[in-house]
Amino acid sequence: MQSFNPPVRTLMGPGPSDVHPRILSAMARPTIGHLDPVFVGLMDEIKEGLKTIFKTENELTMPVSAPGSAGMEACFANLVEPGDKVIVCINGVFGMRMKENVTRLGGEAIIVEDSWGEAVSADKLEETLKNNPDVVIVAFVHAETSTGAQSDAKALCKIAHQYDCITIVDTVTSLAGTELRVDEWGIDAIYSGTQKCLSAMPGISPISFSERAIKKLSTRKTSVSSWFLDLNLVMRYWSKGAKRTYHHTAPVNTLYGLHESLVMILEEGVENSWARHQRNHELLRDGLEAMGINFLVNKKNRLPQLNSVFIPEGVDDAQVRSTLLNDYNLEIGAGLGVYAGKVWRIGLMGYTSRKENIVLCLSALKEILGK
Amino acid sequence: MQSFNPPVRTLMGPGPSDVHPRILSAMARPTIGHLDPVFVGLMDEIKEGLKTIFKTENELTMPVSAPGSAGMEACFANLVEPGDKVIVCINGVFGMRMKENVTRLGGEAIIVEDSWGEAVSADKLEETLKNNPDVVIVAFVHAETSTGAQSDAKALCKIAHQYDCITIVDTVTSLAGTELRVDEWGIDAIYSGTQKCLSAMPGISPISFSERAIKKLSTRKTSVSSWFLDLNLVMRYWSKGAKRTYHHTAPVNTLYGLHESLVMILEEGVENSWARHQRNHELLRDGLEAMGINFLVNKKNRLPQLNSVFIPEGVDDAQVRSTLLNDYNLEIGAGLGVYAGKVWRIGLMGYTSRKENIVLCLSALKEILGK
Repeated sequence: MQSFNPPVRTLMGPGPSDVHPRILSAMARPTIGHLDPVFVGLMDEIKEGLKTIFKTENELTMPVSAPGSAGMEACFANLVEPGDKVIVCINGVFGMRMKENVTRLGGEAIIVEDSWGEAVSADKLEETLKNNPDVVIVAFVHAETSTGAQSDAKALCKIAHQYDCITIVDTVTSLAGTELRVDEWGIDAIYSGTQKCLSAMPGISPISFSERAIKKLSTRKTSVSSWFLDLNLVMRYWSKGAKRTYHHTAPVNTLYGLHESLVMILEEGVENSWARHQRNHELLRDGLEAMGINFLVNKKNRLPQLNSVFIPEGVDDAQVRSTLLNDYNLEIGAGLGVYAGKVWRIGLMGYTSRKENIVLCLSALKEILGK
Repeated sequence: MQSFNPPVRTLMGPGPSDVHPRILSAMARPTIGHLDPVFVGLMDEIKEGLKTIFKTENELTMPVSAPGSAGMEACFANLVEPGDKVIVCINGVFGMRMKENVTRLGGEAIIVEDSWGEAVSADKLEETLKNNPDVVIVAFVHAETSTGAQSDAKALCKIAHQYDCITIVDTVTSLAGTELRVDEWGIDAIYSGTQKCLSAMPGISPISFSERAIKKLSTRKTSVSSWFLDLNLVMRYWSKGAKRTYHHTAPVNTLYGLHESLVMILEEGVENSWARHQRNHELLRDGLEAMGINFLVNKKNRLPQLNSVFIPEGVDDAQVRSTLLNDYNLEIGAGLGVYAGKVWRIGLMGYTSRKENIVLCLSALKEILGK
């Protein structure tokens, strides 16, 4: 076994995206103790930075010390009690995973289903809520990473609240890449990832809980089945000053990386980051359409940071992706589920969302496809 | 918010230990995709490296993508079913946390209690097993980080197997610092951390499951309550070749760090690492005893990598630790639980376990205490 020196790739898949050199170098700074007062100061700054980019005043805003899937589980494990009826909107892989979470926790999942590649239907949600007056939670994915479709989180949350439900929203792929306003839209529990539009390394998951969500958590009749993800405990570890209580050992260097990525997003301005993702999407879109390549998702619901496009007929999916990877060091993503072998997912997330990468991707595809 | 530049500390607390510059620099290498064939090769090497240092042939050997507390939970969540009777041996904080895991999962915890600072009593375990013939799991901590006591894992596992129980063993602080032989000792489910004697960054947790443990997992009547930690799914993500199935996004850069730390341990030889920890413990011990400072744990059960010593009478605990931190950039650990304010925990783990640090710690303590 010898030291590992990775190839230098351009990451245009569904995540991880390219990690900015400033963030990589932040991660290599000397480790300090997780109880060191200087580290506690860093944690406070991370909370504030996350509040800014989530556009929330929620005090319970912090990163879970594990990947986005654990952030998802943190939301469900804390809010779903055995017997709870939960509406889960499914329009791709990550909605299915939400359902899996609900079921394992002893909740009853009621499904609102839309086709892969389409947005979650507000009408279907409202109808399902009407027919199920005892539902307590509505869960949906804002930005479906499996298809590149985005749903109208504001409208869906509004309906959910009209029926007195708490909302759980997956924003793993949307945070910092497309408009997102936690407080204004009424999102009660939100989770995201760092390896998409934040340009940071994979491995931790920012979350935020509203007062309404905390009320549901604090009035549980049963204890949270997970000790590691029990926010009653985790939030004390992330609280300020004397109330801080040891829970686990935070991933110190990974948090250096997240901190640096927050510094960078705040330098750019989160609205400017949304605009950059949109602008670069349009450049890529124009180039792809000029080659006769079509999008899976209609224009209205299309995520700028994740472009799912149909593989041209007669083209060998795996061979193209492997040529891109081996000859151009360029990674694009395969289709998932019903779209495996049918679409490519081309990410323009975070630091990857730059003109030079669009040019590279379009030129390489042209060469390989002989366009 | 500005870029964070941590102070350069010497970490002689209960963890994290100093991370070797080779490992820090490995973490800063460019991120690649978690499905990249080159990354899959890295995952395979990590599995092999972990098998070597755990001294096991267990195929299910890999790091959980979250801290040691999640590694603990992975063991309990997969093996404990509602109604299972589990003996939990408690002689410090982390035994208590095991009990908490069992209870939350619907298991019944039967406690074997020993004083903090002492080893787990094999006799008490045997008596408890005799009195509870329907126990299915025995869980204990090999190296209690809260006190620095080590228990005889080999003897405890032997007894547990005589009563047909599966064993779950916490080796967060022992792995690579003190003798540990998973297969020879009959440990069925083991978890550890990277931020102790592996000198790597905190955030992931190596685990290993024996055939016996996998049999218990695969014959469960209920599904694992955690989707994120369900090893039925996670082990497919870590399996070789075509069987590999997407589960979550691995913490790519953190795994670069773990890989480099495994390369370094294998270069040194794991037995040589154990011997180094013992040798350096003796140097520190001699110096502390010469200053009239006494150990909490008796010689036989003392962990070389974590030295709990009584704070001399009349000395202000917090002030000494804060002077060490602020004037010498030296972190040592406070006491926990019943020993808060009564002991210091001085770690000599991994890369921290070097002569220069022992000299620094002894000299600084002498100056502060006026010895």
